[in-house]
Amino acid sequence: MRPMETNYVHGYSDRERERLVDQATTLTELLHGDTRYPPGASVLEAGCGVGAQTVTLARNSPGARFTCVDVSAESLDAAYGRARAASLENVEFQQADIFALPFPEESFDHVFVCFVLEHLSRPGEALTSLVSRLRPGGTLTVIEGDHGSAFFHPDSAEARRAIECLVALQARAGGDALIGRRLFPLLTASGLADVAVSPRMVYVDGSRPQWVEGFTRNTFTAMVEGVGERALAAGLVGADTWRRGVEGLRRTAEPDGVFCYTFFKGIGVKRS
Amino acid sequence: MRPMETNYVHGYSDRERERLVDQATTLTELLHGDTRYPPGASVLEAGCGVGAQTVTLARNSPGARFTCVDVSAESLDAAYGRARAASLENVEFQQADIFALPFPEESFDHVFVCFVLEHLSRPGEALTSLVSRLRPGGTLTVIEGDHGSAFFHPDSAEARRAIECLVALQARAGGDALIGRRLFPLLTASGLADVAVSPRMVYVDGSRPQWVEGFTRNTFTAMVEGVGERALAAGLVGADTWRRGVEGLRRTAEPDGVFCYTFFKGIGVKRS
Repeated sequence: MRPMETNYVHGYSDRERERLVDQATTLTELLHGDTRYPPGASVLEAGCGVGAQTVTLARNSPGARFTCVDVSAESLDAAYGRARAASLENVEFQQADIFALPFPEESFDHVFVCFVLEHLSRPGEALTSLVSRLRPGGTLTVIEGDHGSAFFHPDSAEARRAIECLVALQARAGGDALIGRRLFPLLTASGLADVAVSPRMVYVDGSRPQWVEGFTRNTFTAMVEGVGERALAAGLVGADTWRRGVEGLRRTAEPDGVFCYTFFKGIGVKRS
Repeated sequence: MRPMETNYVHGYSDRERERLVDQATTLTELLHGDTRYPPGASVLEAGCGVGAQTVTLARNSPGARFTCVDVSAESLDAAYGRARAASLENVEFQQADIFALPFPEESFDHVFVCFVLEHLSRPGEALTSLVSRLRPGGTLTVIEGDHGSAFFHPDSAEARRAIECLVALQARAGGDALIGRRLFPLLTASGLADVAVSPRMVYVDGSRPQWVEGFTRNTFTAMVEGVGERALAAGLVGADTWRRGVEGLRRTAEPDGVFCYTFFKGIGVKRS
């Protein structure tokens, strides 16, 4: 069993959580709809980047205080601008490295990390660093994707190859684009208790035009297209295969196409 | 909107359906928990095989009458034995070919097909044949797996290769082990209305020992192991790669392993 405050963090009964996730009409709801922190709680968002998740986090828990750190001053500038534009009053930003956090041990009630571990060569050490800043009984929440979870109709060897290029580029940069499937062992190894990982599958077919546009086309396919120059420059793929791969992904957004991708969300509790 | 009887077929509100699926503790619940037919309804189970799903179907809808057909007399014998052992009184068996069904048009209230289309070289024609036997307003329910949806930790190229052998063997036999992702376009093309497909992801990690044993080890890995001789005889893979592939799958059942697989369930309504 989790301590009461942890239950509050979920903010909902398990059934309500499931309803929120199952009925999610946007990716933000699917991934973040069941994360709520209680009034007065201090939350560290580690690796906030340009603040893409910060606005959602802070709005969903208006009584909590967020300390959002990133190693990049440039990203923090963008995040600060976003928070100001959203009139957030419960968020502070600070430049910091996850591996050398300028906070004493046990100084936060909760920690939140989203789309960060995938970029790190030592995600386990990052988690250990973050867990050390948690107060006993507090929670750590992690959200990551897994590019190996993508499959689609019509199937396309070139589209699969294009996705493998993303995975290879991430690996060359020291990261792991397949990290979603590893959240359970990573969180368990970091010493957290009551580790629970839930897959958040995005299933898109012609009956869900908003997801076709918002996810298949403008999120996933756009992300793949965005690394084309790097993939070609790295010699990971030929130009023709790449072009056909991107075409294959676009093809899955046609009315008879289907696209599947799974995110993973894990939560664990700091031992007392 | 679906007609009232269709709503009854679901047997539950959407929220209740989601709860049933999300809280499923067995694969049977995950796949079949939300299929209920009303008293008096006549249901065709097409391709019942050895009756693996028949017992669940008939028990979950004790007031409905099931006509279960299969092309194999041998399978039907086994199915009949199973139904008798389960004391089912609402099930009849009949030998029949899905492509030449001995029933007039519009003679069933509902049709149920599970793990059948994957074996057929003309799944679209099979659906057309089945839809023709449906009364207007009746539903057709299809459940299929998709071997391309499997991914796991630790990742293993040999384990992926072993799974590809299953897909190749299925293709050589005229089937499609990746058919799950195609249910939406297949059902839509068969002329059904209100087609809705939902993924049923099996996510297994060390916190779910019953699923590790029941699914990862005794269902999926056992299935792969079962085609080893055929895969080797067909020259699809070398003995050493195969051995390491099976070892790789077994490895995912260790306490720090993770295994993911997605089934798809689709339902559509016969137009009036």
